[in-house]
Amino acid sequence: MKFKIATLPGDGIGPEIVDQAIKVMKAVGKKFDHEFEFNFAVTGAAAIDEVGEPYPEATHKICLESDAVLFGAIGDPKYDNDPSAKVRPEQGLLKMRKQLGLYANIRPVTTFPSLLHKSPLRKDIVEGADFVVVRELTGGIYFGGKGRSEDLKSAFDNCEYSTEEVERILKLAYDYAGKRNKRLTVVDKANVLATSRLWREVAQRMEKDYENIETDYMFVDNAAMQLIQWPKKFDVMVTENMFGDILSDEASVITGSLGLLPSASVGKETSVFEPIHGSYPQAAGKDIANPVATVLSAAMLLESLDLLEEAKAVRDVVNRSLDQDVVTEDIAGDKKAYKTSEVGDWLAANL
Amino acid sequence: MKFKIATLPGDGIGPEIVDQAIKVMKAVGKKFDHEFEFNFAVTGAAAIDEVGEPYPEATHKICLESDAVLFGAIGDPKYDNDPSAKVRPEQGLLKMRKQLGLYANIRPVTTFPSLLHKSPLRKDIVEGADFVVVRELTGGIYFGGKGRSEDLKSAFDNCEYSTEEVERILKLAYDYAGKRNKRLTVVDKANVLATSRLWREVAQRMEKDYENIETDYMFVDNAAMQLIQWPKKFDVMVTENMFGDILSDEASVITGSLGLLPSASVGKETSVFEPIHGSYPQAAGKDIANPVATVLSAAMLLESLDLLEEAKAVRDVVNRSLDQDVVTEDIAGDKKAYKTSEVGDWLAANL
Ligand SMILES: CC(C)[C@H](C(=O)O)[C@@H](O)C(=O)O
Ligand SMILES: CC(C)[C@H](C(=O)O)[C@@H](O)C(=O)O
Repeated sequence: MKFKIATLPGDGIGPEIVDQAIKVMKAVGKKFDHEFEFNFAVTGAAAIDEVGEPYPEATHKICLESDAVLFGAIGDPKYDNDPSAKVRPEQGLLKMRKQLGLYANIRPVTTFPSLLHKSPLRKDIVEGADFVVVRELTGGIYFGGKGRSEDLKSAFDNCEYSTEEVERILKLAYDYAGKRNKRLTVVDKANVLATSRLWREVAQRMEKDYENIETDYMFVDNAAMQLIQWPKKFDVMVTENMFGDILSDEASVITGSLGLLPSASVGKETSVFEPIHGSYPQAAGKDIANPVATVLSAAMLLESLDLLEEAKAVRDVVNRSLDQDVVTEDIAGDKKAYKTSEVGDWLAANL
Repeated sequence: MKFKIATLPGDGIGPEIVDQAIKVMKAVGKKFDHEFEFNFAVTGAAAIDEVGEPYPEATHKICLESDAVLFGAIGDPKYDNDPSAKVRPEQGLLKMRKQLGLYANIRPVTTFPSLLHKSPLRKDIVEGADFVVVRELTGGIYFGGKGRSEDLKSAFDNCEYSTEEVERILKLAYDYAGKRNKRLTVVDKANVLATSRLWREVAQRMEKDYENIETDYMFVDNAAMQLIQWPKKFDVMVTENMFGDILSDEASVITGSLGLLPSASVGKETSVFEPIHGSYPQAAGKDIANPVATVLSAAMLLESLDLLEEAKAVRDVVNRSLDQDVVTEDIAGDKKAYKTSEVGDWLAANL
């Protein structure tokens, strides 16, 4: 089969890690007889530098026409700490999410036995943790009205959710839970926020349609604690945009394998697959960044195209690379550190 | 000297743990020749049951007339999972904060050597962590306009901050940092939120007036990660209300000593001192809850009255109780577990 992959390397280490995912996908194509057409487009600081804005129309068009989007990372230190900057790379990300309607961000949090010693948590607490954080991605305070009062002396951000938005993301989360261990934790702040009370109402209604799934409710502050105290108790956690931003990042570090975790942002037309780590500018161009999170994002991409066997082949070769210590310096420890490109070559060759 | 202490035991284990703090304060009064007048008032579910609302005017009056407020905990399971309940215990807490103008919540996060094994974090990561989370407590999305659209199909919560509100809390945080290790981390989401950009602007302006203090800025998602990865790097962290709710709870579990951590909520007229743990309804009336967080809150209360030596005496006796394993079942492990009241008696007798 033939697939169009919009390819957005972005900033920092983005290009080098995306290159490795492409190598692996090409190997998949060869082995399983598919053709992937990689259509490159700019985004982030790279796009600002080139065309003055972080998610140009041309890039959007390429994404819209794609079967899936492979994304690197965006962000450049020259835009940080400058609250007055008019154009920021992150705006590109938000615009992409909005324009492509990427309403659900999915982050599987898995532990890798060989990396447990890198976890900041005690081994007995984290070993075997395996859950998914589902974050609403196109609503809430991110996309509500925001600005300054006329005298500039105060600022506001509005958070809003509609019943449809809540239903849509809960449905996806329930479906995910149905394919996994049949437990869904709905995280909100219903003791304070009106939007959270809407979420809880909708969930309490939908709960009845998913009788085989055990739903529980948790306040966001409590969830922030339980993620650290009992990460193994979670199966699927679903929450609104801002809470999801915080909790999914918190969840990502408990495993010690931040450099290995993939994500999917699901839209109606197309979906975007990217590592959860950032653009890591200090490492850019040095061929030292860990490409595994991007390669595993490519595996999620393959899954979204219903290429399940192909996705499994990618996961398997990644696991073998970890077992055989074919890894970059961030996780090599005392052993030999492979270059980014060497890991990519190995994965492609051994698929 | 004579001091008026408004005493609000609240719900669940509130009454029994507040009792122990009172015992200890009475012992302080005897030893240092002060008189504490404890004026009791209802709050939370207890107040709803008694007078139909969770922060009655009579309670407010007693607080206003006090030199400080000693608070237990509020919350009752019968109000959970009922998004439609018209009166909720938590509303009492929010009303108290607003009416008393408790603009800053201060939470020292300290590790106790004898409890490190209870931490979900690796010992090498958490040992020696010692920082303070300062949370803005009367602004932001908690107190902005909120509600439903007319057709009930959508809900909204507005977040707002004024320059004065931001300046006030940052000033307090800078003063705290000045008395500690002279580092302040300002946590926001300035890459997305207009209110966060206001926070960052104000902080960048004030930074220049506090040359002896090192200010750094961190996005809230990143802070949620770094709290777990490198808790020792923080000194004072300051943030807005909603982020502070999440981060301060996250911070509180990394030490393994949740049952021991106190807090202060600072207002202009009076301040409120309370344990950070909740009302723990399952344990109510069983004389098993850990009173130490409340006793240490009393120590913060004494400090706020400029009774520094007295506060130190309370901390010292708490440390001795821990060294000598005079502790409740939550931390007793294989050793003998003392009752709540026994720990209180021991602390009062050994002060
Ligand atoms: C860069 C930023 C706007 C973005 C977000 O907050 O959504 C990022 O933190 C993420 O989680 O993808
Ligand atoms: C009970 C709730 C309203 C409250 C809050 O969110 O502020 C609590 O979580 C806290 O942190 O004191």
